[in-house]
Amino acid sequence: MKVAYEGTAYAGFQIQPDLPTIQGELERAVGQLTGQRVSVLGSGRTDAGVHANGQVVQMLVDSRIPLERWPLAMNALLPEDIRVMKAAEVPPGFHVRHDVIKKTYLYRVNNCPHQDPFLRRISFHYPRRLDQSRMEAAARMLEGTHDFTSFCSVRTAVENRVRTIYRLEPEQASEGFLFWVTGNGFLYNMVRILVGTLLEVGTGKRDPGEMTTVLKSRDRTRAGMTAPAHGLTMWQVEYERDYF
Amino acid sequence: MKVAYEGTAYAGFQIQPDLPTIQGELERAVGQLTGQRVSVLGSGRTDAGVHANGQVVQMLVDSRIPLERWPLAMNALLPEDIRVMKAAEVPPGFHVRHDVIKKTYLYRVNNCPHQDPFLRRISFHYPRRLDQSRMEAAARMLEGTHDFTSFCSVRTAVENRVRTIYRLEPEQASEGFLFWVTGNGFLYNMVRILVGTLLEVGTGKRDPGEMTTVLKSRDRTRAGMTAPAHGLTMWQVEYERDYF
Repeated sequence: MKVAYEGTAYAGFQIQPDLPTIQGELERAVGQLTGQRVSVLGSGRTDAGVHANGQVVQMLVDSRIPLERWPLAMNALLPEDIRVMKAAEVPPGFHVRHDVIKKTYLYRVNNCPHQDPFLRRISFHYPRRLDQSRMEAAARMLEGTHDFTSFCSVRTAVENRVRTIYRLEPEQASEGFLFWVTGNGFLYNMVRILVGTLLEVGTGKRDPGEMTTVLKSRDRTRAGMTAPAHGLTMWQVEYERDYF
Repeated sequence: MKVAYEGTAYAGFQIQPDLPTIQGELERAVGQLTGQRVSVLGSGRTDAGVHANGQVVQMLVDSRIPLERWPLAMNALLPEDIRVMKAAEVPPGFHVRHDVIKKTYLYRVNNCPHQDPFLRRISFHYPRRLDQSRMEAAARMLEGTHDFTSFCSVRTAVENRVRTIYRLEPEQASEGFLFWVTGNGFLYNMVRILVGTLLEVGTGKRDPGEMTTVLKSRDRTRAGMTAPAHGLTMWQVEYERDYF
């Protein structure tokens, strides 16, 4: 299923006892629909407060509800801040996380003097002058295949931190900037640290030219701040085939 | 002051005892800032759940806070869903309601099969096929100067229901339609009834040609439904001079 959610009210995607989670709500709704206890696996976790436009989730379920009725049936049981947009059948070997080819995130920054009440849950209010060409220069140096150890949380468990960023682009918007990030995979907090670092380049605190040194250092303390969760949206997840 | 708010949590603009209102929050914040009990008058009321992008409010206040510091000072005391965007001094004779020359409202309709979790508070989910050219034809007949008795709530107190609509336009958007309405003044529920009627034209329930008869009848029951409050945003209020 392709799922959109506003993450504000949730302790993240991953199920946790006694806390509202996206996975928890999805499994509850599937349970109510089918009478079965079903695990709903996501293409990746999102942290508390992070949103999704096109999260993809997988489940193995035995049901007589026709495929095209699933979104409507699920949405009748889900809270309003979680919506199933589409449902598709996948081949038996499909794995929603391992088979991901590309992921795109959007990070929204509002740099107007005052936060917009309509964007407050989905954008980071950072009311400082940001130089687009400086941020673009830095972004270009971060695109490509690199060891992103400097750009992930020190709590990252995975050993191999080499990832490929296909696109990292600060797009000017009326309220500030939309940071588009597409890659073959992301480490823990990676998008938020990339954006936090680009913002520090944008204000003049850092030079775009530093990016190569920061990457080479493999030292988290050399990169910039972790931008807050609520500005981040998991935008799109791509597989070899387009199931939706 | 030019004020933006997400109206979801409020019982409308106008102050009411024991209910959260926009006016109540503004008067409380001004009181905290100045130590004075001050009335904050709006360019017009908005109903419970209705939003504003550019509501204009007026007050008479004696304060040593410089004008350019007012938005920041107010925003520090206001809840996050109400933001003061700008402040300006007005000439002594200015009246925020009587001096309005033009007002623009935006009514958002999402007609995709499933509501977008990010638009759920600010758009009406009406998942039906809507014919833009039919709605445009009807809109053109409603533009101009007419007695809008058929298009206002039966609870409308005012006698003279003649108003001029300069622009009534259903603009296609990715999620559905943005209905832009600009006029010299609006009656109670007028924008919501205009949009409700255009939606019934869009689905084919009504003919665009009916509009003239509906206007002439001066009978509320001849027009369409009142579209729900949460799709409506007071977009812009214009005066002879641009104070902001």
